[in-house]
Formats: sequence, structure tokens, C-alpha cells
Amino acid sequence: MDIHELTRALYIKNESKIVLVVADGLGGLPARKGGPTELEAACTPNLDKLAQENVCGLMTPILPGITPGSGPGHLGLFGYDPLVYRIGRGALEALGIDFDLGSDDVAIRGNFCTVDDTGVLTDRRAGRIPTETCKRLVEKLRKAAVSGVDLFVEPGREHRFVVVLRGDGLGGDVADTDPQVTGTPPLAPQPRDAASSRTAEAAADFIRQAREILESEHPANMVTLRGFAKRPPIPSMKDVYGLSACAIAVYPMYRGLARLVGMDVVPAGATLAEQFESLRKHWDSYDFFFIHFKYTDSTGEDGDFDAKVRRIEELDGLIPRVMEPNPAVLIVTGDHSTPSALKSHSWHPVPVLLASASCRPDGAAKFGESDCLTGGLGRFEAKYLLPQALAHAERLAKFGA
Amino acid sequence: MDIHELTRALYIKNESKIVLVVADGLGGLPARKGGPTELEAACTPNLDKLAQENVCGLMTPILPGITPGSGPGHLGLFGYDPLVYRIGRGALEALGIDFDLGSDDVAIRGNFCTVDDTGVLTDRRAGRIPTETCKRLVEKLRKAAVSGVDLFVEPGREHRFVVVLRGDGLGGDVADTDPQVTGTPPLAPQPRDAASSRTAEAAADFIRQAREILESEHPANMVTLRGFAKRPPIPSMKDVYGLSACAIAVYPMYRGLARLVGMDVVPAGATLAEQFESLRKHWDSYDFFFIHFKYTDSTGEDGDFDAKVRRIEELDGLIPRVMEPNPAVLIVTGDHSTPSALKSHSWHPVPVLLASASCRPDGAAKFGESDCLTGGLGRFEAKYLLPQALAHAERLAKFGA
Repeated sequence: MDIHELTRALYIKNESKIVLVVADGLGGLPARKGGPTELEAACTPNLDKLAQENVCGLMTPILPGITPGSGPGHLGLFGYDPLVYRIGRGALEALGIDFDLGSDDVAIRGNFCTVDDTGVLTDRRAGRIPTETCKRLVEKLRKAAVSGVDLFVEPGREHRFVVVLRGDGLGGDVADTDPQVTGTPPLAPQPRDAASSRTAEAAADFIRQAREILESEHPANMVTLRGFAKRPPIPSMKDVYGLSACAIAVYPMYRGLARLVGMDVVPAGATLAEQFESLRKHWDSYDFFFIHFKYTDSTGEDGDFDAKVRRIEELDGLIPRVMEPNPAVLIVTGDHSTPSALKSHSWHPVPVLLASASCRPDGAAKFGESDCLTGGLGRFEAKYLLPQALAHAERLAKFGA
Repeated sequence: MDIHELTRALYIKNESKIVLVVADGLGGLPARKGGPTELEAACTPNLDKLAQENVCGLMTPILPGITPGSGPGHLGLFGYDPLVYRIGRGALEALGIDFDLGSDDVAIRGNFCTVDDTGVLTDRRAGRIPTETCKRLVEKLRKAAVSGVDLFVEPGREHRFVVVLRGDGLGGDVADTDPQVTGTPPLAPQPRDAASSRTAEAAADFIRQAREILESEHPANMVTLRGFAKRPPIPSMKDVYGLSACAIAVYPMYRGLARLVGMDVVPAGATLAEQFESLRKHWDSYDFFFIHFKYTDSTGEDGDFDAKVRRIEELDGLIPRVMEPNPAVLIVTGDHSTPSALKSHSWHPVPVLLASASCRPDGAAKFGESDCLTGGLGRFEAKYLLPQALAHAERLAKFGA
């Protein structure tokens, strides 16, 4: 059962506004057994007041035990089943550098690497060359041209870059050329279906030219390509939820994910305060606002419990700003947990707070994982967050008579 | 969505150990309204301490309201959707007597029965003949021979026995010959698909010979056959979870279920203490250990509240032994509830306790059904237990970038 079949049939348009604040990697773990999590340790009077007066719960991003990457994590929050809508590596990389990927483009993750005189791989990451070197080499690679195809090469960080092939009849299913081990030459790009044979040829042509262009460079004297992928076909939020949506995100990856579901990307500035200013500025133009806050995740990834606490407190301090224009529904949650104890994304369920006029009271006295356990939203899969937001915004009609 | 598609793609191998202790039929009910369940009445200091420091929850074995048999109950715990992987009656009976069922064997549950001179059934269970008589009659039935088929006949308890047909081209779909009522002759075995016509012929041939062999016996002068089934094709735990798994179970049924998912069966001894000794002995050879404790179920089936309490206390007393080798993940749960008040398996959700370094605190102060209601694992389908165990053992990579 595709929930979009329901929402497409039932959505209603009105003047209500929905604001989704995503504190990336919000869920956490105690620094030691029995202690508070980062969210519980943080002093969050504004979020706590909202939790008391509204409804909380815990979200399973994908399925129990499954740790999501940022792509699937956000698709769930936007109301798309992350197990149905899969984003290939190359496409995600292109989104991550703000590349406006067309529906027929093939995006590819490139690595600079080192090969010896016989063409055998000796370093799959070319000694992790500085980002500045990467930019210079990408500039050189842009001299490559493939007949009948528009070729884009964009630098990433260190040894990483992105290639986009644009043209008719390019399938997206080509095997990686990175053999994942050294001591063997890079593989030739092999199409995995008939529709991708032109793509494989174009990629082979690009690799040949790259080898020549980089011949005198060291250590980055060759490239590998992997994660060939087209932009997945995803219906827009307008289509499935009747929502005119906008994204206010500082980092390109999240703007890219928002674009995938048809959101407009508006200027975000560089800080949460500036993002909330942008929210006010665009208030009248959209129904739905996605505001992304990165630093709860990056501090978790750093394993810095206290820094994550401070970032949560920074968010809490700005909550009154987001309430000022009086949204019909405010949601504060994460796309996954990033416990500083694990220094990585995790599978733990994610605390969620939903504030609206139609919340049924629950036992949550503050916004934290333990209180969310007693929350009225219970435990639910992330893909059901958006239908609940629509409901609280009175944007969904009755199912059946 | 098959979760095995995910786990196959995401599993990681490491040195961590996972121990699953199944106290069969663990979940219970109070002896009278308002009282404690068996698990709550039991004095379980070791389990309570683990519950306080780790995470609890309640598992739905199949779906709400559905009472599982032992087969589906265990398949769920092993991470297999019991609604997808069905074990036919005959196959389960064969597993239950430790018969090593091949993938092309057809297993059949046999009953000795009584027919009158005209062949009409007068007793479907032949007066529940003693098990010793069953053994003697099975010995006689072994004289039967069916051309082109290896025939195995194995005694069960009382009037029950198992037939296995082994040979090429034997389908598993043949209708029961037991008409379920007396006053009518047993039915002829009817194939329900083309692939099973040889099986039906072989079964008919066996029944003819059985009738002759048993002619002078009383009351067991005839047989009925039912539950024709092949071993279901189930991918191994190695295949879907990357786990090298072993079963330490005293009763043959549970060894058979473990074999179905590719576990090695190692000597278990006869008591829980001996099972835990076996655990220590095989500690270095496996990633995953399934330890089965039968008596919480059998005392429940007997309707003996106090005996079930004592069996739970017996398990609790040995918990320190299972913690000694320091498993990355310990799970204590049941395959279903067997409340002594009902003297049978039930649909009630099953308490579960998961101990690992990465547990988020919850409200459970002891291991019991009421405390599990507040547990951080929430309420989940049993098939999601194993993915969560893998996650806590750091054996699952991130889904998507």
C-alpha cells in the first residue's frame, strides 16, 4: 500500500503553514550508562514547554535496527518511503555539491587515484590530495570532451569529484571502475543493462582522456568512477501532498534532497538565526518549510557530547522565533540519531515533537528520549510523519464516507 | 519489502558475539486479576539488574491477536518473517523427531486409526495406543516398500508417527487422507498439483500395504496421513545476516528449527547449566548462539503458575554464567506467551530484554511484562529482533549515504 495513493486523494488546500525543523542526528545516547542523552542533558526550556503542551513520540527512520544515511533519513521525513525511493551514490554526490541534476543526467562519483607505469592501482585515493589540488585537476579534466554528450566535472573534497553525463539514451546502470583494492588496474566501465551501453562508452572515453590529461601529475595521475546513478523519479510534495514547499538549508546536500521532492530552495544564510529570518521572509509564499540544522549531527560524529548539547541549546534559544509567525504545525525532530558515544549515525529511534492546536495530551514533560517514550505519537515509521503533520494542519479529508 | 534484501547488503563481520536465550512461552498472565504474571512473581535479581541497565520491550510474535506455534514463533526470533516462511505440518513433525529432512524429501504426519470391516473409520486415534505399541507397529510398517522411493517410518508419541518419502520428482502438495470425522472411510491421497501425483501414488501404495500389515492388529488396524510437506526453502543465517550460528537446545523440535535456518547443532546436555557449559565450550567457534529453555512453556501448558515461576527463577540463577564470556549482545525473551491461566500458547506480546553497550535508558526497573511496556524497544514484530541485535553488535552498515 502506497500512502501517497491515499494522500493524493485526500489532501485539502488551506492557508495553514507547516514548519519542519530537522536537527540532524538529534537522537543520542548517554555518555555513560544511566546518564542523560545529549538532548536530555541540554537546557531546553522552549522545547520543553512545547513538549508539555503538545505531543511527542519516537520515529523509526527506516526499520528497527537499520541505520539511515542522510538521503534515506530525509526522504522519510519528507513523507517518502526510503525503501521504495532509492538514491544512488552518484546522484547523492551531485546533490551534495548543489548540482542541479536533470532527470536524464547520469551522475558519477569520481576519485583521483595513483597508478604505476603499468597502470596498476597503487593508491585508491591518490594520497588524499588537498582540496585545492582537486580543484586545479578538475579544471584540467574539463578539457575532456565526449561526442554527443554534455560533460560536467565538479570538484569535491580532497580526492573526490563528481562527473555528470547529460545526453539522450544514457542509462544509469554501469559497474564501478574502482576495484576496491590496489595491485590491480582500474576496471573498464561495464554496462549492466542494454540501456546503459552508451553511458559505459562515454565513461570509458572520459577515462582515456583523463589518463592522458593527468599523465604528468603525481600522485593523482588517474581516476576511478563509481556509483553511476540517475536522479530517481520521485513525485513532488505538491503532487502527493498538495504542498507548496521550500527548503532553508545551509548545506548543499540537504538543498539537493529537498529539490528531489520538488521543494524550492531559498537563500538560507549561514546560521540558524539567518535561516529563521529567511523563514519570515518567505512565510507568505509557501505552505511547508523545511529548516535544516547540521551541527547536532556533526558534533555527534565528532564524539563531542558537550558540543552537541550546546548546539541543541542554540536551537532551543531560537525556537520562539519560529513560533512568532504562528505555524499551524511545528515539528522538531531529526533524520536519525547520531549519538556522540558512537561517533556515527545509529539505528536508535529519533525523538519527535509536534506542536499544533489539535494535540492530545501525553505524559511527556520535557523534550528528551525518555519522555518521548511516553509520548502520544507513540513509535512510528518516519514516512508517517508528514501525513500526521497534514492532519494537524487540517489538510487531509476523511477516508471513506 | 524483504528485510533480508537490506541485511544481506548491509551486514558486516566482526568478532562480536550475540546470545539469544529463548525461555519458551515466557510471557504470562496473572493467576487472578490485578496480580503479577509468572515473570513478575518470580524473584529474578539478575534479569532485573540487566533490565535496569539496558533496554526492554514487547514483541508481537506474528501479528496482534495471532497465537504462534513453536515453528513460526522461532522463525520470527531467528529473523524470518513467519508469514513468508511457512513450515508444513509434516516437515515440523519430522524436525520434532530430529529427522534430518533433505530438501527434496516429503514429510508426512501419520496417525494409527481404527476402521471397521467395511473400512469405515471408527476411531481417528486408535484409542490413543501407548507409545510402546506405536514403536512396535512402526517396526512392522517398515516392511512396506514403494518402488522408486526411499521410505522412512518413524514412531512418535501414542498414535502418531512420521513418514518420509525420498526420491526424484516428489511434489509436496497432497491432500490429507484423514477425513477429520468418523463414520466414513479414510480418503485416498489426492495430488493438489501435477508435481505431486507421484507422491500421491507412493502414499496410496504405502497405505495399501499398511492396511495389510495391520490387518490383525487392534485397535490400530489402519493409518491416515496428513500434512504432506517438503522442507521449506529458507536462506541461512549466514546468507542473510553473515552470522555463523549454533543451537544449544535439549529438545529435538528446536534443534530441527535451528537446522532449517542453517545453524549448527552442538551437544546441549540435559539441563540449562549444561547448555551454558556448552556455550562456553563453543564460544570461539560461532558468532550467534541460540539457547532454548523448554520448561517455562511446559509448566505454562500444565497450568502450573508456581512451577513456571520456579523455572523462571532457575533461568535467572544461571544468567551470570551467560554473561561471563561478555557477549556483545544478550537477548532474553520467549517465542510466544504461554500463560498458565490459559494452559496454552497465547497471542499476548512477549517480554524482551536486550543488553549491550549501546542501549538507550528506559523506564524498565525490572524484567516483567508491565515494565516492558515502558521499555525503549517499544512494541515490535519479532522478525525485527535480529536486525536490532545485529545493530547493537555493530554488524550492520548504514543504509544509503
